[in-house]
Amino acid sequence: MKTVKLVSEVRAEICSMKKRGQRIGFVPTMGYLHEGHLSLVKRSVEECDATVVSIFVNPTQFGPAEDYSRYPRDSARDGELLRSRDTDLLFIPTVEEIYGEGFSTFVEVGGLSEKLEGSIRPGHFRGVCTVVCKLFNIVSPDKAYFGWKDAQQLIIIRKMSEELNIPVEIEGCPIFREADGLAASSRNVYIPREKRRYAVALYMGLSRIRDLLDNHGIRDAARLLKEGRKTVEEYPGVELQYLEIVDPDDLSTVKTIDGKVLVLGAIRISGVRLIDNMFAGDK
Amino acid sequence: MKTVKLVSEVRAEICSMKKRGQRIGFVPTMGYLHEGHLSLVKRSVEECDATVVSIFVNPTQFGPAEDYSRYPRDSARDGELLRSRDTDLLFIPTVEEIYGEGFSTFVEVGGLSEKLEGSIRPGHFRGVCTVVCKLFNIVSPDKAYFGWKDAQQLIIIRKMSEELNIPVEIEGCPIFREADGLAASSRNVYIPREKRRYAVALYMGLSRIRDLLDNHGIRDAARLLKEGRKTVEEYPGVELQYLEIVDPDDLSTVKTIDGKVLVLGAIRISGVRLIDNMFAGDK
Repeated sequence: MKTVKLVSEVRAEICSMKKRGQRIGFVPTMGYLHEGHLSLVKRSVEECDATVVSIFVNPTQFGPAEDYSRYPRDSARDGELLRSRDTDLLFIPTVEEIYGEGFSTFVEVGGLSEKLEGSIRPGHFRGVCTVVCKLFNIVSPDKAYFGWKDAQQLIIIRKMSEELNIPVEIEGCPIFREADGLAASSRNVYIPREKRRYAVALYMGLSRIRDLLDNHGIRDAARLLKEGRKTVEEYPGVELQYLEIVDPDDLSTVKTIDGKVLVLGAIRISGVRLIDNMFAGDK
Repeated sequence: MKTVKLVSEVRAEICSMKKRGQRIGFVPTMGYLHEGHLSLVKRSVEECDATVVSIFVNPTQFGPAEDYSRYPRDSARDGELLRSRDTDLLFIPTVEEIYGEGFSTFVEVGGLSEKLEGSIRPGHFRGVCTVVCKLFNIVSPDKAYFGWKDAQQLIIIRKMSEELNIPVEIEGCPIFREADGLAASSRNVYIPREKRRYAVALYMGLSRIRDLLDNHGIRDAARLLKEGRKTVEEYPGVELQYLEIVDPDDLSTVKTIDGKVLVLGAIRISGVRLIDNMFAGDK
């Protein structure tokens, strides 16, 4: 595995890969890797000839009051993990390499970016789309892998790539969960040890909704959400930020369920924000 | 010359060109071609192995009260002209091929897009950047050719390409002028015949400023602009929309000139908007 910091170095490596006729898989990350990330790397290694991973904690997707500066970082450990999973190229740029002085070009997917996470984190998806568009142009992958954990992000990036005609296939990979169901996230490290067992609240709320829908035929979203909320609120110290049932195509609210839906939510526990989601209604 | 309507057809052609190791030059246009456009095609044919031209009157760069529907179109004549100038591939997509239902992804260069033309045509450069970004992703050219006639557009597209890491070189080509100095433009066809001789007003104003600066050493922008305005106003029926002296790097206003500047302006004559510009101060 080669590790590079400069855009020009990535381009040179990609150029050699393409000359050898290799199909390139790309996994963009913010580092502090967990099994969720590594499952994306595994898919890429299986499906492509060369796998490129980027680690970049992207400042433009954090709000001014968010955790950009304290976001967990450990690039030495990340590098070892990626090497052991057969990554070919690791790109770890500085902020200056990605955002030059006076940077002012942004990519935005209107509509989808203002809902759910976007309503709580204004500008978040603008930052995500901009950096992902840049990374796609730098790496020019054949396939790029994103986790369903960040469902809204995946849906937005898919729309952006289609609408800007970026020649990449966006692959969504299943959420990796801990034994109790908590979705793997770099931010889980923030959860105080004594609160860890309550962090499963959102997973339990989502599971409750899926069970009522798929196994008990309750199709009224208001009633499902009420039950889901009740489940989340059984866990002490958990604040539910939102819980919604939406159409996975356009994230529009669904009132009566008659097909596949996405149930998503966000909680705060001891100041830590956690998001999770689940498909349901496709039985 | 092959003419295609679909993105998939362009991609197939480009793929063959790249397999043959050809360097691709690209000239995006809105059609109704004049010698200005053809000078871009000439540069591309000279410098690249294959030349791709697009003709697309882009609705998202027109304001609601602007001339989108009556913008001049003549694709049969355009096709003949391009064939005679050794174009390899002509892409004429429909609006539906470029903007699918529910399209909502936009690219924007903040700051530069709000000045000058942007202040009079809000959203114009957002539309330009979005379609050019899409066309670059469809054609993936090595070089793309733009006329200095639309100076602000050229500067914005250069910044967009750099900041989004689009791997293309943006080449600026000199303004093509009629015998009297009027800059070639598809919109010149709108000028009533009896007013045609007054359309040169802006060119004369710009030339006056350049002369006073370069040959008479007047470096005070306010004084230069006053003289330039006076020249424009000598022509009957001409309304000056703006006249400015700016730094070509960031379009910021210059007060006292001590290097290369860009002098730009816009006029209206019989309801027709015309823009023009000139470099000066580099003697």
